[in-house]
Amino acid sequence: MTEAVERLTKKSEDSSKWYLQLVRMAKLADYGPVRGTFAIRPYGFAIWERIQQDLDARFKATGHQNAYFPLLIPESYLMKEAEHVEGFAPECAWVTVGGDDELEERLAIRPTSESIICDFYRKWIHSYRDLPVLINQWCNVLRWEMVTRPFLRTAEFLWQEGHTVHATAEEAREEALRMLNVYRDCFYEVLAIPVLTGMKSPSERFAGAVETFTCEGLMGDGRALQAATSHDLGQNFARAFDITFLDENQERVHPYQTSWGFSTRTIGALILVHGDDRGLRLPPKLAPTQVVIVPIWRGKSKGEVRREAEALHRELVEAGLRVEADLDEEHSPGWKFNEHELRGVPVRVELGPKDIEKGQAVFVRRDTGEKEFVERRVAARRLIELMDEIQSNMLRQAEAFRDENTRRAETYEEFREIIEEKRGFVVAPWDGTEETEQKIKEETKATIRLLPFEREEGKDLISGRPGKTAIFARAY
Amino acid sequence: MTEAVERLTKKSEDSSKWYLQLVRMAKLADYGPVRGTFAIRPYGFAIWERIQQDLDARFKATGHQNAYFPLLIPESYLMKEAEHVEGFAPECAWVTVGGDDELEERLAIRPTSESIICDFYRKWIHSYRDLPVLINQWCNVLRWEMVTRPFLRTAEFLWQEGHTVHATAEEAREEALRMLNVYRDCFYEVLAIPVLTGMKSPSERFAGAVETFTCEGLMGDGRALQAATSHDLGQNFARAFDITFLDENQERVHPYQTSWGFSTRTIGALILVHGDDRGLRLPPKLAPTQVVIVPIWRGKSKGEVRREAEALHRELVEAGLRVEADLDEEHSPGWKFNEHELRGVPVRVELGPKDIEKGQAVFVRRDTGEKEFVERRVAARRLIELMDEIQSNMLRQAEAFRDENTRRAETYEEFREIIEEKRGFVVAPWDGTEETEQKIKEETKATIRLLPFEREEGKDLISGRPGKTAIFARAY
Ligand SMILES: [Zn+2]
Ligand SMILES: [Zn+2]
Repeated sequence: MTEAVERLTKKSEDSSKWYLQLVRMAKLADYGPVRGTFAIRPYGFAIWERIQQDLDARFKATGHQNAYFPLLIPESYLMKEAEHVEGFAPECAWVTVGGDDELEERLAIRPTSESIICDFYRKWIHSYRDLPVLINQWCNVLRWEMVTRPFLRTAEFLWQEGHTVHATAEEAREEALRMLNVYRDCFYEVLAIPVLTGMKSPSERFAGAVETFTCEGLMGDGRALQAATSHDLGQNFARAFDITFLDENQERVHPYQTSWGFSTRTIGALILVHGDDRGLRLPPKLAPTQVVIVPIWRGKSKGEVRREAEALHRELVEAGLRVEADLDEEHSPGWKFNEHELRGVPVRVELGPKDIEKGQAVFVRRDTGEKEFVERRVAARRLIELMDEIQSNMLRQAEAFRDENTRRAETYEEFREIIEEKRGFVVAPWDGTEETEQKIKEETKATIRLLPFEREEGKDLISGRPGKTAIFARAY
Repeated sequence: MTEAVERLTKKSEDSSKWYLQLVRMAKLADYGPVRGTFAIRPYGFAIWERIQQDLDARFKATGHQNAYFPLLIPESYLMKEAEHVEGFAPECAWVTVGGDDELEERLAIRPTSESIICDFYRKWIHSYRDLPVLINQWCNVLRWEMVTRPFLRTAEFLWQEGHTVHATAEEAREEALRMLNVYRDCFYEVLAIPVLTGMKSPSERFAGAVETFTCEGLMGDGRALQAATSHDLGQNFARAFDITFLDENQERVHPYQTSWGFSTRTIGALILVHGDDRGLRLPPKLAPTQVVIVPIWRGKSKGEVRREAEALHRELVEAGLRVEADLDEEHSPGWKFNEHELRGVPVRVELGPKDIEKGQAVFVRRDTGEKEFVERRVAARRLIELMDEIQSNMLRQAEAFRDENTRRAETYEEFREIIEEKRGFVVAPWDGTEETEQKIKEETKATIRLLPFEREEGKDLISGRPGKTAIFARAY
């Protein structure tokens, strides 16, 4: 906290500038020397660790095990699945020298691991008894991106990638949907982001998938963000990598696969969905610090206030809360209020000589700004309640925002107006052709974010042909 | 378990062949397409996850936070610290192409992260109030090795690397020793490996360090393994990377740094220290499966035995044990005994119709082979006790082995005989010159594994000059 105080740009004034400034000022991340690479600083990483813990427990509860696969993928492996190589080869970083030697074949740093994992699966899978294979890995991946922005689009990022193998198409489809729902639950329950779920249009599918399912969030500036995806790979990779098994009838057949990923990009979503003009707002389940105690002291009261703040700190830690007591004497309470609001701490507890006299403390909620006078002896109990209340309220706020910004368009003109003036999600029928999808994209910069699982029939706004519901938005 | 049954080579016959076979048969790891790269399979990774959890909690309890730094390091950064580049540049893998473009400067995949982390620290550290910086990262690193062996020496491996910055030399030294002790505690308490701790001789120091502390384990074949190291970097990196801070007297000075690392190599140590002719022996704290229930069934008893095995399984899971019930009908009990012994499961529970009749179960310990008849109603309680007993006993066994294989040499001839015929640790005075160190290495293949913290005075066996205790061994 020794860095110069700086004023945060208003989110409403310049959302992009606000974002970059906030990432830096809240010490979430910092730029690396290589274009598009970033360090995730301890405050940002502590958020990621909590997301990891939550997801990892959900993966294990659904029968998955973790493993680790090599970082380096020979070019020839990437080439085996035609669509896959087309999608990923142009954005790979290539190792061409090892030690002092030029390599005979260049090696990609994994942009995603289907190709190398399939090579292992080919060796590990022989019989229907070896299935299903339910493996996940937590790792770094790298995609050589031209335009980058911390968390949202970075060359290197952290993620988990699940890779499963099944005996039947139905099982693989179920798995892809199961993991989509695991992601959705984590977004709702932990990140407090009410994502929409559905299918991608064919043009937006993962390179090599037969179906891509997606979680789409609506950011505070009305743009959508693809937050996590789950792919039904069918037999595409099994054929390309020659994975086979002997089924119960002793016939050699190709299995069906899925893959699914959730990355540090979601920290960007967290900032964009919940942040406001004062800075971050972190859901209590992810906040590295849930409660900050700020003593309000003057001259001779200092000793007593410090002792009380320390006692309260101990009590709250024992109650299982993640608490900080900001006992720094260099800065004023007002300076500290701003600092902890910027960092998104869910509740600030103010404690002054008068509060101590009255046996109370003042709680200020970051989600609503509400002030509350609480009896000192029930402080811990009330804070634990508040964590739940704030967590639910942040989800409700985000749901209300999403619903207010989800609009039906009856005509193409209306569609363009909404996208141009209000942004948000636009619900409209789509005739299923790439032609209209492409036209909309060129003319409005909106893309199909997803095709809902329940789709109504209607007329495509451009072609007039019969269509079914699609959800459009301008996206990150 | 559908893979062909294969006989494990005896450890005593060919330790190296035994090791490679065991890694494969126990499904711990598998070779990748690029030389020296490996997949860590779920059974191996589950061991690593438990080590991670344990260490991570110890790091946090000593005030450290996790973060993440970029994978790619520009060559010019590696070059800044002269010894560091000399040590690591020859074994880097280099990225020279990104997307479609040749890069202007080639990028190393991190072999270790001092150089890139120092660049961030330079930006983050301004004042004594910013110190200490206590950061750790869990990540992959890559060193282009010529000879590789799963876990023990691999091109890519997983580790944690701590990187701390302090205002004074004393604080940095204390930190380096604190983390050495954290490692030692984890080895003793969790891996059941009684490592020796001490300092490296100057020639074996980490490239760029002023002092390297080490944990050295003695493997089952009498060779030593450097299991984890902690470095006092002094101001070497701070000078090279121009990290400075304003101290309390408002003077701009260089801080002092440490770094310390613990890698997946320790899984190799775990195999080599505890494994035997039957396979792995895993300490209960790390075993993915602590107890396996093997039903002994015949024709008409099958239904009842299965039900009892399932009931016991549920009961043990509820008691907090990691349990498997091997209800497979394809294989005989004998086949299963071998399989689970190979996998190192600490206790096997046999349950047959007679046991059920008598209200008992048979426990077989993997560490001693001892059989024990236990009343069915106290099975869970007894197993929980046994986990502790086995954990302690494995440490005691390893300590006894280490002590039996630690010998004092009074003459150089004796030294050579021990190294040649018995291996193990050899304790002898060393005059502190690189000359005798080098001679011993050339003539006996033994190296100085460490200089103990308490060193006795004596005469160097080769030069006859005054020396102090050093511990030698042939090493992995
Ligand atoms: Zn085929
Ligand atoms: Zn200097």
